[in-house]
Amino acid sequence: MPHTAELIAVGTELLLGEIANTDAQTLSRELSALGINVFYHTVVGDNPQRLRAAVEIARSRADLILTTGGLGPTCDDLTKTVLAECFGKKLVFNQEAADRMEAYFRRLHPDSGRMTENNYQQAYLPEGCVPFQNDWGTAPGCGFETDGVRVVMLPGPPSECGPMFRARAIPYLRDWADGVIVSRSLRLFGIGESTLEQQLRAQMNSMTNPTLAPYAKEGECELRITAKADNETAARAMLAPVEKELRERFGDLIYGADVDSLEAVCLPLLKEKGLTLGTAESCTGGLAAKRFTDLPGASAAFKGAVVSYTNEVKNAVLGVPQELLDQYGAVSAPVARAMAQGARRVLGCDLALAFTGLAGPDGDGRGNPVGLVYVALAREGDCHVREIHAAGSRSRIRTVAASHGFDLLRRHLTGQTL
Amino acid sequence: MPHTAELIAVGTELLLGEIANTDAQTLSRELSALGINVFYHTVVGDNPQRLRAAVEIARSRADLILTTGGLGPTCDDLTKTVLAECFGKKLVFNQEAADRMEAYFRRLHPDSGRMTENNYQQAYLPEGCVPFQNDWGTAPGCGFETDGVRVVMLPGPPSECGPMFRARAIPYLRDWADGVIVSRSLRLFGIGESTLEQQLRAQMNSMTNPTLAPYAKEGECELRITAKADNETAARAMLAPVEKELRERFGDLIYGADVDSLEAVCLPLLKEKGLTLGTAESCTGGLAAKRFTDLPGASAAFKGAVVSYTNEVKNAVLGVPQELLDQYGAVSAPVARAMAQGARRVLGCDLALAFTGLAGPDGDGRGNPVGLVYVALAREGDCHVREIHAAGSRSRIRTVAASHGFDLLRRHLTGQTL
Repeated sequence: MPHTAELIAVGTELLLGEIANTDAQTLSRELSALGINVFYHTVVGDNPQRLRAAVEIARSRADLILTTGGLGPTCDDLTKTVLAECFGKKLVFNQEAADRMEAYFRRLHPDSGRMTENNYQQAYLPEGCVPFQNDWGTAPGCGFETDGVRVVMLPGPPSECGPMFRARAIPYLRDWADGVIVSRSLRLFGIGESTLEQQLRAQMNSMTNPTLAPYAKEGECELRITAKADNETAARAMLAPVEKELRERFGDLIYGADVDSLEAVCLPLLKEKGLTLGTAESCTGGLAAKRFTDLPGASAAFKGAVVSYTNEVKNAVLGVPQELLDQYGAVSAPVARAMAQGARRVLGCDLALAFTGLAGPDGDGRGNPVGLVYVALAREGDCHVREIHAAGSRSRIRTVAASHGFDLLRRHLTGQTL
Repeated sequence: MPHTAELIAVGTELLLGEIANTDAQTLSRELSALGINVFYHTVVGDNPQRLRAAVEIARSRADLILTTGGLGPTCDDLTKTVLAECFGKKLVFNQEAADRMEAYFRRLHPDSGRMTENNYQQAYLPEGCVPFQNDWGTAPGCGFETDGVRVVMLPGPPSECGPMFRARAIPYLRDWADGVIVSRSLRLFGIGESTLEQQLRAQMNSMTNPTLAPYAKEGECELRITAKADNETAARAMLAPVEKELRERFGDLIYGADVDSLEAVCLPLLKEKGLTLGTAESCTGGLAAKRFTDLPGASAAFKGAVVSYTNEVKNAVLGVPQELLDQYGAVSAPVARAMAQGARRVLGCDLALAFTGLAGPDGDGRGNPVGLVYVALAREGDCHVREIHAAGSRSRIRTVAASHGFDLLRRHLTGQTL
C-alpha cells in the first residue's frame, strides 16, 4: 500500500499572491518520482491556529506531511513550534545546526561580528528528529516519525527547498519509496484537445498502469503515458507498447517524444542536413525568430529574420512586389509566398518561413477576420502556403501562427506531407 | 466582519508537479485587493471523493469558495458536478454558453465548424447560478450562493482564469468587498533589488498603512505601495505622498507607475511625437521586436526589424562594413553602432535599436565573456552605445539586453541622459 503525502506550505505571502507556491511543484515532482502519492496541497498563512488546523486535517488523510516555509527567525519558527506541539515533541538545541549557521553567517558577513540571537532559536529542533542541515541557507529542516506518520520540514525559499529535499529528505524517505514512476510525453500538433480526448476517452478510462492523459498547450496537445514499476527498465517496458499504438494511431500528428517544442525538434534536423533557416515576419513581429534563437546552439542553423511590419519594409527589404500588396493586400497567400521567397534570397538561407496575418485587436481595411494568418515555407524549387484561423488573444494568435511555421518546417525536414 | 475565501484548485497535473498553481497567486492578489481575506489554498486531483472532502472542509471555514480547473470536456466537468452535488443543485443546460462555444469553434475550424459532442456538457451549469461566459476559451464558469456561502467556479488555464475573474467574478463579488485596497506600482530600471531593499528597509519596516514592498523582475525592480481605506479616493490620497517621496529619491530610475514594461512606456511617447522605431538584433534574435509588437497598436510606430544572426546578414542586409566585423568582431561597440545606423536606413525609421552580444552558452572566438552585450540607439545626427554585462541564463541575458534598449529609448523620448 503506497504512502500518501500532503504538502503544507506556510506563508502569508502565498495567501496574498505575492509569490506562487513553486515549492509544491518541485516537491510533488520529486515525490511522485519516488512512487509516493500526493493527494493534497494546502497553503496556510503565518498563523498558529490555522496551521494547527491544517496539520490535524493532514494527519487524518496522509501518512507523510511535508511542510515548506515558516522556519527561520523572521517568522518565529512558526512551523517547527506548531508541528512539534501537534505531535507532542519538545524542541531541543542542536549544536551542529548552530555551528553551521555561525559558519554560514561568517561566510556572508566576514567583517561583521556574531550571529544575532534570534538566529540561534533556529538551532532548536524536535526531540528525536533527524536534523536536515541546510547548506543552502540558514534555517535547518528535519524529519521525524510518530504513530506511523512522518513529518518532513523544509525551508521555504525555492533555492533551499529543492536542494534540501534532494540531499536530505530523499535519504530519509528512501525506505518509504515505492518503486518508480516514469512518464513519456508525446507532443502533437494539428489536432484539438477535445477531439483527441474524445478519440481516446474509452482507452484512457480503461487504463490504470500505465495511465494515459491528454494536456492542452497553446495550440498544441500533449499525451502523457505514465507507468509505475519496481525499476525504470520495467516502467519503460510498460510505456513502449502504448507509445507504439499511439504513434500508429496519430502518425505524423505526433512531432516528438519528451521534447520541448516544435522548434526544438527542427534544430537538430537542420544541423544534421546542413540546412539554414530564416524568417520573414509580419504579424508574428519576430516571435518565430525569438523562439528559434531561444534554443542554445541556434546559430548553427539560423541566419536571421526580417520583421516587415509595414508594407514599405515588405517591399523595400524583402522585395515583395508592390502590385501584390495593392492587389491582394498584405494578409494574403501571394504576399506570404513572396515574403518567404524574399527572405530566402535576402538572408541567403536554404529554408525560409513567412508569417502575415491579423493578430488583432484591429483588422485590416479589407474585412479579413482577426486570427487569419498565412504561413509560408520557401524551399529550393517551391513555396508552400498554409492558411490558418487562430482564435483567442493577440498573444495566442501569434504563438499558434509561429507554431504552424515550425510544423511546416519539421514536416519538410522529416519528408512528411505539408 | 470581512469575508474569508478559500481557493480550491482541481487538477492531478498540479499534484504531479507538472505545473505550479499560478491561478492561486492571481486570485489571491485580486481577492486581497477586494479586502476579502484568503486563509487557505487547497489543491486536489481529478478525484470526486477527495474533491468532495475538500469542499466540505472549505465550507466549514470560509464563506467564499473559489475553484479553478476541472471544467471542460477532458475532466468530465468534475468540479461543476461535485460542487453542484455538494450544494444540492441540479445542472441545467445554458443555451448562451452553448451558442458561444459553437461560435468559438466556428472561428477555430471555419471549414468543419462542428463542435464535438463532449463540448456540449460544458454548457450545463448549476440551477440558479450566475453564468460566467468565457470569452477567452470554451468552458464557462459560474457563481452561486447557498446558505450564506458563495461558490465561484473558474476555468484552470491561466489565460482564462485571470480574465474571467476580473471581468465576471469581480462584478459578482462586488457587494462582498470590504473597503478597498489600492496599490500603486512604481517600476524601476537600473538599480538592483538588494540595493533598493537596503536603502528602503528602515522606511518599509516603519510603515503599516500604506505599506511599501520591493519586487524583483528580470533585471528590473518594482516598488509597490499599498493602502487600505473605505474608498478609492481616500486610498489614493494615502499613496500620493509616498510616491512623491520615492520619485524625489530615485528620479529617472523610475520609468513608470502602473505600467507593464519599458516598451509599454515607449509606444505612446513615439505615437505622440510621430516617431517610428526599428531594431537590428543579433544576440536578442528578435526578442526586442517581439516584445514591442506584443503591444496592441504597435504598428502605429514600429516599422520592422532585421535579425542579423550571422555576419553575412549584418553586412549584406544592414550594411555593416566587413572591415568593422573583421577588426572589432561582431560583439563590439562599432558594430552595434553600424547595425543601429543600418537599421535606421534600411527600415526607414526615425529611431533604431541594435543589440549585439553573447547570450551564451558559447562565447565568441575573441574571449569576450558571456553576458557582454552592446546596445545602441541610433537617432537623427548621432548614435549612443551602452555596454552591459548581464548575468544569468541565456534567456535572462537576452531579456535584460532588450530592456536596456528600451531604457535607452524611453530616456531619449523623455529627454533624459542616456
